[in-house]
This record gives sequence, structure tokens and C-alpha cells, in this order.
Amino acid sequence: MDRRSFLKASTVGAGAAAASSLAAPAYAQGKRSLTMVTSWPRGFAVLDDAATLLEEYVAGISDGELTIDKKAPGELVGALEVFDAVSSGQADMYHSADYYFIGQHPGYAYFTAVPFGGTAQEVTNWYHHGGGQELHDELGQIFNLKGLLAGNSGSQSGGWFRKEINSADDFNGLKFRMPGLGGKVLGKLGASVQNIPGGELYQALSSGALDGLEWVGPMADERAGFQEVAKIYYTAGFHEPGSALASSVNLDVWNDLSDKHKNILNVASQAVTHFQLAQTLANNGAALARLQAQGVKTLQFSDDVWDAFGRASAEVMDENMGDEIFAKIRKSFEESLANSAAWIQKSDGYYVEQRVRVLGG
Amino acid sequence: MDRRSFLKASTVGAGAAAASSLAAPAYAQGKRSLTMVTSWPRGFAVLDDAATLLEEYVAGISDGELTIDKKAPGELVGALEVFDAVSSGQADMYHSADYYFIGQHPGYAYFTAVPFGGTAQEVTNWYHHGGGQELHDELGQIFNLKGLLAGNSGSQSGGWFRKEINSADDFNGLKFRMPGLGGKVLGKLGASVQNIPGGELYQALSSGALDGLEWVGPMADERAGFQEVAKIYYTAGFHEPGSALASSVNLDVWNDLSDKHKNILNVASQAVTHFQLAQTLANNGAALARLQAQGVKTLQFSDDVWDAFGRASAEVMDENMGDEIFAKIRKSFEESLANSAAWIQKSDGYYVEQRVRVLGG
Repeated sequence: MDRRSFLKASTVGAGAAAASSLAAPAYAQGKRSLTMVTSWPRGFAVLDDAATLLEEYVAGISDGELTIDKKAPGELVGALEVFDAVSSGQADMYHSADYYFIGQHPGYAYFTAVPFGGTAQEVTNWYHHGGGQELHDELGQIFNLKGLLAGNSGSQSGGWFRKEINSADDFNGLKFRMPGLGGKVLGKLGASVQNIPGGELYQALSSGALDGLEWVGPMADERAGFQEVAKIYYTAGFHEPGSALASSVNLDVWNDLSDKHKNILNVASQAVTHFQLAQTLANNGAALARLQAQGVKTLQFSDDVWDAFGRASAEVMDENMGDEIFAKIRKSFEESLANSAAWIQKSDGYYVEQRVRVLGG
Repeated sequence: MDRRSFLKASTVGAGAAAASSLAAPAYAQGKRSLTMVTSWPRGFAVLDDAATLLEEYVAGISDGELTIDKKAPGELVGALEVFDAVSSGQADMYHSADYYFIGQHPGYAYFTAVPFGGTAQEVTNWYHHGGGQELHDELGQIFNLKGLLAGNSGSQSGGWFRKEINSADDFNGLKFRMPGLGGKVLGKLGASVQNIPGGELYQALSSGALDGLEWVGPMADERAGFQEVAKIYYTAGFHEPGSALASSVNLDVWNDLSDKHKNILNVASQAVTHFQLAQTLANNGAALARLQAQGVKTLQFSDDVWDAFGRASAEVMDENMGDEIFAKIRKSFEESLANSAAWIQKSDGYYVEQRVRVLGG
């Protein structure tokens, strides 16, 4: 499909006079606008922050020559319909989390986060310097997509609960929201797992449709208001240690872009991850303190619970190994992670340990 | 000063015919080239990687409308003369490490790294979301510079030695290269500290002019060849836990740039840090293994030595507190760090600890 031809044709059909005086000259000057559907309601911290920043950066560095027209869920398609919409050419690009689309292919889990996977830095190391980008593109070939990442949530919190999790058995029967392979892990522990879009979570938790949920981290969770309807918050989780956000583009649209516009999308996407991840990590501490001031009790899962997460995660990962592409992505990711993680432990890890010991706190 | 006018005038003087057919039309089309002096010999891993990437990104996203003409040390000015060259307008911008310029102002230490300071992520959090950029600009006003960061080395290694450091006393009398406030800390321990540019270090270590040195980390150090002349390598250090690289611009040049070109430099600089830091961290592990295969012994400093680093660092930091701007920068940085570090420990830190415990390794 050729989205641009389709758009031009339909514009002309809808109003030939307007199109000839506005759209055609704009295109002749090399101007281009891309419709970006997202999974985030406007103003949703962290996620919509990244999407909005991408819009700003692209327009800013091209002086409006290339622009992104961002659509919130429901404006063009639903929050979880963005992948199919871009794959089919209904929209030019999406901003979302690729693990929402493990139904399309389980390998997409790796382009957001997998259980016991990498931190934001480890994921970035793999994506740009360990073969991740190439595998994102290989998967994209199947679905007519060019893979791009723009944004990262950092390590996600274990989530919101109405009662404490004292053993893995406490997940049994729990109605819990968790997308991606992490959700399948909780399913192994007996939870009734659902993937509900962010914009519908507050209502689901309030109404009792959910017993608990994980969303992102203190900054995003506070904005969503979950502290009003649940009071127990686990601050580290096994499921998303550094979730990347995707800004992937319909492959026909991508192939039709000039090299300059491809470079703009690539470089702006990288800069978005740099700036927005830092924004999130700079604000999570203060957001957590405000949550605590509102009566939220913060906890960490016990070692026993982590062990149960570990066993169930290994099962879930292994169940997908029949898929050749999944197996290939997993191998690439795990090799990169082993290498990255060992060095980071020796340098950053040992340094921070000494800083805490020497300076205290 | 108006660097652009100066350049045009001198070009016309040198060859009027060529200038009228090439330079003038290029400028009329909005083209602009910035001369960037650097502190890195061509091909120096990590550092020149970041500078080269900046050159590529800027040209790529502007389709050659804005370009950077990168100069290695000696091509226009020496490695450590870049700050004065850009401050005075002799060059348009530099790529360097601002802590080389603590002689100009001690506050510049914070825009690379300070002893017991932040990791790359913590520094980024502060710079973009904790007031760092604004303070970089405030300092820049004094020296006619617009502050930008492009690149980060990650946590730097403790360095290369010919004999083991078994107590802080072993630094006494040691001829050691370490720039910035870290160097002043080793001075407190009795070392004879020098700041020698990267391109001259191999020779200085080979000849015995230096007993030891710190440079960057495994990837950069291997490329520089230090393993050929020293065999003891400490893998974590107190002095540069996440060194930012600066891509600052002469302030008159900056003020004369269009908003578009300012955006391009800002966004490209952020993307450079994202991509190059990941490249470094993805490659350090394998580089370290190759160093070990060449007979390098890798060690960590003992707790006693770290304690001595801590005491001397506190002295050095406090000695600079008479300077009002230094004190203001320190306060801003430490507030941001405390907040960032506490959250990162709770999320990434606790997660990685559990990942290591559950999965082993």
C-alpha cells in the first residue's frame, strides 16, 4: 500500500480547491506530516510525555518541514489497535509499547521488556549495539513496519494491591492487569490476568473489576491516581526492568521518506529516550514521597516470591521457543545482556556500592 | 565578535572567485558550517566516537544544511586549548571534557564528573531535569559559551598501575595522570598529579614520565594500548562515575544561529549521548576480556583505599566552597543526586540484585 498516494487522492476527492492551494504546494516544498496513533491518553505522564516530545523534536529540528500529528486512543483507533492500524496503512506510525502485540508475534515482547530482562541501559545497549534494531526490523518485515524506539519508562514498579503479597500463593485468583510475557508469568501463579489500556485502569480498579494492577512507576502512577483506590505499592518488579517505547512506522511510508526524514526520525527517537527517561527517573523519587504522604505503604516482594517469579518466567520463556524468530531474538538479547550486565556490575555497580558505604545513605 | 563575518571576510580575501561561486550561495541557501575543535586524536575510542557521531547526526538530520568541521588536537589548537579558542571566537564550538577547564572555573568539574558524583544516568537526570543545563549556561555567560553535553564515558576505571595499590600510602610520590577534581584528591594522598592530553599518554607511560594513569574504560584504554606498558588495571574508580562530554558553542555564534539550528544541535547532542554511551557499555565487557587475555590483572581498590578517597574528596570539594557559583552548582547537583539515587536503588538496584540472586551470575 502507498499511504501517501491514498492520502493525496482522498484529500483531492474531499475538496479539490483546498488541496490544490494548500496541500500540494506544501508537499512540493518537501513538507510532510505523519499521523501517529498512540496508546496513551493525552497528559499521561511518562508515556504521552515521550510521544509529545517526539512530536516536538521532529518539528523543531526540521522547522516544521516534517511534522507528526499525534492521535490519542479513540481519536482514530483504540489504544491497542495502533499496531494493526499502522501495519495496514490506516495510520503512518504509532507510539506504544510493543509487548502489547505479543498476540501478533511473541518476539515483540523483547522490544518493550521481558521478565528478568534488561534495565533501560542494558536494553539500549542491545538495541543499538547488540543486534536489537536489526531484529526489530526483521520482525517488522512480517508486519510491514520499520522498528524504532522512542522512550523508556525505566524499571517498572511491582504494582498496586489491596492486600499484601506474602507468598506466591497470594496471586492465585487475583484479578490483575499486566501485559506482555509478565502477564503470562502471573497467569502461571494462578492470577486472572488482563491487559487493559492505561486510560481504563483507574475505573477498573475502582469498580473492583481488578484487584490490582501494575502501570509504570511513581510519576506515571501518581498522575493516573491509583493511590486513591489502592494503598499497597511494590516498588520493584520482575516483569519490566526497563520498558522501551516504540515509535514504529508503516514500512511503505518509511521507504517513501527521504534520507533526511529517516535521519530525523531516528535521531529524534534516540534523543527522546535520553531526555524522557531522565525526566522520569528525576521525578520518581519525589512522586513516591508524595504517594507515601497520601498513606500508600511501599514494599518489596520477598525472596520467596521472587523465586516463584523466576520459575514461572523460565516456563513462559521456554514455551515460546518453538518459534524460530523468538528463539533468535532471545539468544541475541541474552548474549548482549550477559556482556553488558557483567561490566555494569563491575563499574557502576561496584562504584555505587562504595559510594553508599563511604558517604552513607 | 562575529565569527561568521570574520570567516566570510577571510575567505573572500583568500580567493574571491571561489568564494563568490561557492560560499556565498551556500550561505544564501541557509547553509552553515561550524568549526569544532576537540581534545581527541582521530580514532580515539569513546571520545572521538562521540564527536564524530555529533558531526554525522547534525549533517544527517539537516541534509547538509548545518555541518560540523571537526578538528583534532594540533590541527587548529592544542587538546587543552579548545575552551579558550571557543571562548575567544577562534573556533565555533568544542568537543571536550569540561573538567579540563577547572583552572578557568572550578564549577566546570560538574559538567564532566566530580569525585563520588553521579553515574551517567544520574548526571543526565540532573543536567536536563535538575537545573544542570541552566547552571552550565550561567557559567557559560562568564566565558562567552553556550553549554551543551554530547556523550558520556560511563563509569571510568580506576586506572593503570605498574604495582598494586594496597593502601592509600601507595599513592604517595606516584607520578599519576588524572584531570579534574579527582586529580586534586590524589594530590592530597601525596601523588604527583598531572593532566596530560590523551594523545600523549601512551608515550608518557612508556617513558616512565608517568607511573600510572587513568584514561576512560576498557574499550578506550585498549585502543590507546596501555596494556602494552602496564599490567595492573583497577576496574572502578571514585573520580569519574559517569563523565559527560561537552559540545559547547561560542555564545555569539549560538545567538546568531536560527532556532532550527539550535534545535538541531540540542537534539543531536542528546542523541549522541544515548547512542555512544550504549556503544561504550556494550563493548567494555569484551574489551576487558581481551585485556585480561593479554596478561592484564584486574582489581578493585579495597575499602580502606575507598575510605581514603572519600576523606580526601570531601576536603577538595570543601576547598572550593568559597566560590559562590561552585557552591550553587554543588548544592543543585547534590540535591538532584540524592533524589535520583534513592529511587534508582529502590528500582534498578533492587531489581538487579534479585536478578543476580534468582538467575545466578
